[in-house]
Amino acid sequence: MYNFADRMKNVKASDVREILKVTARPEIISFAGGLPAPELFPIEPIREASDAVLRESGRVALQYGPTEGLPRLREQIAERMLKKNAIHTDIDHIIMTAGSQQGLDYCGMLFLNPGDAVVMESPSYLGAINAFNLYQPSFLEVPTDENGMIMEELDKTLTENKNVKLIYVIPDFQNPSGRTWPLERRKQFMEIVNRHDVYVIEDNPYGELRYKGEYLPALKSMDTEGRVIYLGTFSKILAPGYRLAWICADKALIEKFALIAQAAVLQTATISMMVVSKFLDTNDLDAHVDIIRETYKHRCDVMLDAMDKYFPPEAKYTRPDGGLFTWVELPDYIDTKAMAPQALDKLVAYVPGEGFFPNGGNKHCMRLNYSCMPDERIIEGIQRLAEVIKANLK
Amino acid sequence: MYNFADRMKNVKASDVREILKVTARPEIISFAGGLPAPELFPIEPIREASDAVLRESGRVALQYGPTEGLPRLREQIAERMLKKNAIHTDIDHIIMTAGSQQGLDYCGMLFLNPGDAVVMESPSYLGAINAFNLYQPSFLEVPTDENGMIMEELDKTLTENKNVKLIYVIPDFQNPSGRTWPLERRKQFMEIVNRHDVYVIEDNPYGELRYKGEYLPALKSMDTEGRVIYLGTFSKILAPGYRLAWICADKALIEKFALIAQAAVLQTATISMMVVSKFLDTNDLDAHVDIIRETYKHRCDVMLDAMDKYFPPEAKYTRPDGGLFTWVELPDYIDTKAMAPQALDKLVAYVPGEGFFPNGGNKHCMRLNYSCMPDERIIEGIQRLAEVIKANLK
Repeated sequence: MYNFADRMKNVKASDVREILKVTARPEIISFAGGLPAPELFPIEPIREASDAVLRESGRVALQYGPTEGLPRLREQIAERMLKKNAIHTDIDHIIMTAGSQQGLDYCGMLFLNPGDAVVMESPSYLGAINAFNLYQPSFLEVPTDENGMIMEELDKTLTENKNVKLIYVIPDFQNPSGRTWPLERRKQFMEIVNRHDVYVIEDNPYGELRYKGEYLPALKSMDTEGRVIYLGTFSKILAPGYRLAWICADKALIEKFALIAQAAVLQTATISMMVVSKFLDTNDLDAHVDIIRETYKHRCDVMLDAMDKYFPPEAKYTRPDGGLFTWVELPDYIDTKAMAPQALDKLVAYVPGEGFFPNGGNKHCMRLNYSCMPDERIIEGIQRLAEVIKANLK
Repeated sequence: MYNFADRMKNVKASDVREILKVTARPEIISFAGGLPAPELFPIEPIREASDAVLRESGRVALQYGPTEGLPRLREQIAERMLKKNAIHTDIDHIIMTAGSQQGLDYCGMLFLNPGDAVVMESPSYLGAINAFNLYQPSFLEVPTDENGMIMEELDKTLTENKNVKLIYVIPDFQNPSGRTWPLERRKQFMEIVNRHDVYVIEDNPYGELRYKGEYLPALKSMDTEGRVIYLGTFSKILAPGYRLAWICADKALIEKFALIAQAAVLQTATISMMVVSKFLDTNDLDAHVDIIRETYKHRCDVMLDAMDKYFPPEAKYTRPDGGLFTWVELPDYIDTKAMAPQALDKLVAYVPGEGFFPNGGNKHCMRLNYSCMPDERIIEGIQRLAEVIKANLK
C-alpha cells in the first residue's frame, strides 16, 4: 500500500529512545538515558526570565522571527564560545537549531548524497548515526583508544577513501565512551583534515562539564580554513526542554543552513530564544554549570567506585574526566542486547553498545549514564548489573 | 571548495522571508508577510499558563520528553479536531511538529525520491514548494478557478502521470489565493484520490478563521482509507512564536514520522507543549479565535473596499471568506517582480506571484496580506499600490 522513499529503508528506531519508554517505570534503575539531572534545573530563574519576556515583549516573543535566530542570543553565544572554547566568532557565523540533533540533520541535508562516506569514531553517538542515515551514506569507522580517535588510522582512512564528505567527532567526553582527545591529537587532527580537504562536524554538548584536568581548546578554535562545523547546545548546561542549540560555521555554510531552515522549519521558537537570552542576561550560567559539574563528578565517582567494587575483573570501563557516560566492555562472547532483558528482570537498564557502531558488531559493549539519579540508586543499580554480568560469564 | 549534496541545487531563498527582511523598516506598509496580528496575542493568559507550568512542573517542562509529543496536548488537539473539523481521531494518530513547515519537511522525507511527482494547486503555498524542493521532486500543477482546484483537471493529471507520490492542497482560504473548495469538490476530490490510490497532504492553518458562510468538513473527515495527512497548527489561532503544530495521519504513517523526528530533531520542545496545553485547559480558545476572526474580517473588508475604490479595473482579485490573503491578477504584460522595487520606492510591499507556482511563470500576480495592520495603513498602502499598478498599465 505505502510507497515510501528509498531513504526510509535505512531508518530504524533509536535504541535509546525505545529503551527510555520501558524505563519510565519507576522501579527500574535506568543507566540507559542521557538525561540531565532535573533537580538542578534553575527553574525559578527561568520562570522569572519567562515572566519578564512575556511582560516586556510579549508581542515580539509570540510572533515569527528571523530564520537564523534572535540576534541578541547569537551575540551571547558568540561571547560564551570565546570564553569557554577559545573560539573567535560573531552572530554572522551562528544559526540557532532545535537541539544539536537538528544541526546534525542539517549537515546531512547539506552535504550527503546517497553513498557519500561519513567518517566517525568507533564507537560514536547513535543519534548522529540515525540523523545521517536519512541521507543514505556509507560509514567509515576509525578505531579509538583511551585518548579517542587514533590519528594514524584517520589518515589511513582518508587516504584510502576518496568519497568522504564529512567527519563527525566528539572530542570532549565522548558519547558513548566518555573519552577525551588530548591537545596533541587535536593538532594532528586539524593537520590531517586540512591536508585531505574534508569537512568536520565537532559536536560539543559536554565540553563545559569537565570534572578534572585542564579545559582543552575546541577543534573549531584551531580551524584556520573554515572547515569545522561546531555544534553547541543549551541542553546539558541549562535544560533540554527548550530544544535550543546552535551551529557555528563558515559564513557561506551558515547561509546554506539558513536556506535549509527556511524550507524545513522556518525558524527556531522565538519565545524560547528570548527566555534563554533573558536568563543569560540576568543570571550567572557559569555558577550554575559549576553546580552541575560538582554533582556529576560526584555521581561519576560513585558509579566508578561501585563498579570497582562489584563488577567482575572481566568488565573493563572508561574513567571519564567529564560528561555523562562511561563505557563498559565485557568479554566478547557476551551479547549485551541479549542480556538486556535479564537486566530488566533485575530492574536495571543500560544501552547495548552495538547501536553506537554504524556498521554494527561489538555486541559486548554497553553505555552507562550516571547524571540523573542519587547515589544509592547508582550503587544499587551497579550491584544488580554486576549480578547479571557475572551470571553471563563463562 | 564546497561540495554540497545535489539536492541543494534546487533550494533557493524564500521570496517571502527575503522580503520580510526589507519590510522590517517601519515606514514601509507591507502586505508581504503572513503574520498574525500581534496585538491580539493573549499575552497575559499565556504568561499565567507559563508561570503555572514552571511553578507546578518545572522539572518535567525543562526535561526531554516523548518523540510524539505531550500526550495531554495531543488529547486536547484530538478533541478540538472533532469539534472544529469533524475529524474523529486520537493521540495515536497525532505527532507534534515545530510548525506545519516541519510537517511538510517530514512528508517530503517520508515519501519523495528524486523525480517523484507532487501535485499542487496552481498557485500554491511557496513554503510547501520550498520544503519539497529539498527532496528533488517534479511538480504538477492543477489549474484552479474561483472554487479552488478543478477536479476534472486533477483526474486528468493523475491519469496521465503515474509517478505521483503526494497531492498537496489547502482547501480552506488557500495561501496565496484565499479561495475555498465547496463541499461538492471535496467529495469529488476524495473519490478521485481513492480511485488513483495517492496520498494527500491537507494543510489547514486557516480553517478556523472563517468570516462568512458555513464551516466545511475537512478532507480528513471524509477519509475512509487513511490516505489524508492532515496538518494543523497553533500559529494562526494562538501564536506562531512557540512553533507548535501537528500531523494527524494513519497510525502506520505516524510511526514513520516518529522515526524521522527521532533522527531529525528528537522531539518538539517540552515546555512549549506544556504551556500551550495549560493555556487550553484554563482559557477559552474559541472566544479568542472569535476575536481574531472579527478583526481579520474587518481588515479584509477594509482592504477589499480600498481595492474596489482605488485599483484600476484591470486588476482582478479574490474575495476570501476567511484566512489572511487576497490574490491579485494584473494584466499579463505586468511583471510583479520587476514592479516590486517601484512599490518599495513608494513604501509599499507585496509578494510577487511567481514564487507560488512551482514551475514558475504567472509573473502578473501578487499576494496581499491584511491581517496585521490597522485600517488606515491598509487604505494608505492600497492607494500607494494602486498608483504603482496604474503607472505600469499600457
